[in-house]
Amino acid sequence: MNSDLCKRLGIEFPLFAFSHCRDVVAAVTNAGGMGVFGAAMMSPEELEEELSWIDAQVKGKPYGVDLIVPNKFEAKGEDLSDAEILAMVPEGHKDFASALLQQHGLEPGDLEPARADRLVFRKNISAEGARRSLDVAFSHPIALIANALGLPPQDMLERGKALGVAVGALVGTAQHARAQVAAGVDVIIAAGGEAGGHTGEVSTMVLVPEVVQAIAGSGVPVLAAGGIATGGQMAAAMAMGAAGAWCGSVWLTTAEAETNPVVKEKMLAASSRDTVRSRSRTGKPSRQLVSAWTEAWEGKAAPTPLPMPLQTLVSEPALHRIDQISQTGHAGAQDLATYWVGQGVGLMNQTMSAGAVVQQFKEEFLTAYERLGTLLEE
Amino acid sequence: MNSDLCKRLGIEFPLFAFSHCRDVVAAVTNAGGMGVFGAAMMSPEELEEELSWIDAQVKGKPYGVDLIVPNKFEAKGEDLSDAEILAMVPEGHKDFASALLQQHGLEPGDLEPARADRLVFRKNISAEGARRSLDVAFSHPIALIANALGLPPQDMLERGKALGVAVGALVGTAQHARAQVAAGVDVIIAAGGEAGGHTGEVSTMVLVPEVVQAIAGSGVPVLAAGGIATGGQMAAAMAMGAAGAWCGSVWLTTAEAETNPVVKEKMLAASSRDTVRSRSRTGKPSRQLVSAWTEAWEGKAAPTPLPMPLQTLVSEPALHRIDQISQTGHAGAQDLATYWVGQGVGLMNQTMSAGAVVQQFKEEFLTAYERLGTLLEE
Repeated sequence: MNSDLCKRLGIEFPLFAFSHCRDVVAAVTNAGGMGVFGAAMMSPEELEEELSWIDAQVKGKPYGVDLIVPNKFEAKGEDLSDAEILAMVPEGHKDFASALLQQHGLEPGDLEPARADRLVFRKNISAEGARRSLDVAFSHPIALIANALGLPPQDMLERGKALGVAVGALVGTAQHARAQVAAGVDVIIAAGGEAGGHTGEVSTMVLVPEVVQAIAGSGVPVLAAGGIATGGQMAAAMAMGAAGAWCGSVWLTTAEAETNPVVKEKMLAASSRDTVRSRSRTGKPSRQLVSAWTEAWEGKAAPTPLPMPLQTLVSEPALHRIDQISQTGHAGAQDLATYWVGQGVGLMNQTMSAGAVVQQFKEEFLTAYERLGTLLEE
Repeated sequence: MNSDLCKRLGIEFPLFAFSHCRDVVAAVTNAGGMGVFGAAMMSPEELEEELSWIDAQVKGKPYGVDLIVPNKFEAKGEDLSDAEILAMVPEGHKDFASALLQQHGLEPGDLEPARADRLVFRKNISAEGARRSLDVAFSHPIALIANALGLPPQDMLERGKALGVAVGALVGTAQHARAQVAAGVDVIIAAGGEAGGHTGEVSTMVLVPEVVQAIAGSGVPVLAAGGIATGGQMAAAMAMGAAGAWCGSVWLTTAEAETNPVVKEKMLAASSRDTVRSRSRTGKPSRQLVSAWTEAWEGKAAPTPLPMPLQTLVSEPALHRIDQISQTGHAGAQDLATYWVGQGVGLMNQTMSAGAVVQQFKEEFLTAYERLGTLLEE
């Protein structure tokens, strides 16, 4: 595609695939788009291994890495031990999660070891943890590094500039887009409220033109995110001035995706109404597939979700157990199983390879353009 | 524009303007789009007067009428007197509204007479009331009649078919779109959750392709609604398969609009984050401009909104008083003043005539199409 962004990043088609699955990242990059590896839940050692694998697959073609370095989280900057952090999780929250498993016929078991394991997320989102992840990321031939939940740390920006790696930032409001551009970010990802994962309230249809307008003249390109699962929607976003589309959900049902097969089936069957924006997974509002788990946390009896990252220490160990047991055919676990996904899940109705998804986007994009052309014929 | 819908309705540009203001309806029709007069809050006598005025302005050019005939509302089908209906409104709700006015320095006065006046809405949404409104509407040379909040009454469909008037229905889910098509509706208006007024939760970006896909093969055109305030967004919706755009909010800040000038100024200054989807105005979720009124009703001390149409008997008399007093420069009333509006309010930044808005949509539509063409150049 004939655009500054494609030229700068060396890509053919400005479709960005956010995924925690390295196979998806490599497949999308190899199909002419850009895979972006979501590394937030990973230790630096694991990240090193995954990026090396991707390097071998893409053979110099451009890909990116996405981190989460939030500006605000509980006990940020405080020098607390793992034990002190674990002690901050109220018993009531842990009990609610365990009881929920029991109500659905699952033995919760001892979730404490899994809770301790989850502290890697807290480490990653700390300044020190972020620096270690950045060291790994910048030691690979990445073309883009993106950050969510606030301004990127200063050294991400500086090292990006020095190494010629574009720095991207996810935003949910025009005001935040302006702040990101002022801070020196190279690419804005405007994520509408229908997106999976952490998300604001303004819809993609409104946010994209609002952000494009807000930072017009800066030369900073805007990628549209939120609800996009087809090439027709990508064309729609680009008709409104976006320079490309950033998709996460659509890869979750691809053949390569490591999504729990039970959740994958649920997603293929789901309509766009089967998601909920809730604080119950991470402490900040994030959109997820509706399940018995999310419904219980939205119920009146549920405790108020804890601030990030404490809520993660409640949800993730329980959800990990649910995921494992659901794959044995356990009906209660299948009812509880969920994952982050956007409203675009209503458009995800069949499994295909990630490369075939990119190809389909290209075809649908052209069809959408030709549809407008036909309408404008005299 | 070269489309079946434009040919069928006899319009040049498939931009539909929902408005309670007859001047906007006439101006949009005269500019080549289609004005659709929102008649839900009007007696049959008033409707007759307004449509006659429009007829004189548009001189045979096509326009439409929009009614609200909900499938479900409190005491539907029951033969209750006005006094019995008024007695169903709890004192606690009335007191909360009056206290809110007082907290902002307004003397609420006796709101009972205004409450009685508001019963016209209950009459209009009843089967008998709807028939009287339909009699008036069908006695004018309308090209479209639309309904919100459920399947149109059978006689709306039958009379539409007999008279060659297209019958439209607003939907917020793909499932409802299928049911409307099965019932014989001629035009589906798919309204995303970012829309002003009564609205669902699925965003326009997702709902439009989902509805287009759900009723593909039926030949029934889909208009996109929700958040659309520019021609670029209209092009986006049509790239996704919509046959046109249905806009409400964008007309509220036009020169012709009868919007309270205080609210108009608030809308011009508002960002897309300054709206809230709340049951506090009608009893069903509807999106409104955030104000001290909506914030109080979203607060913990607020009573749970009543079912439609009882909540209207609480909100409208108070909001009418707020509107009047706000125009005298009263700061408290200005803080409270609000009206229905969608997230597209963030894109509404200057006042122009409704005709100029249509012209701007046409230009922005072309620009959007050309933007895609440039991207696709080899």
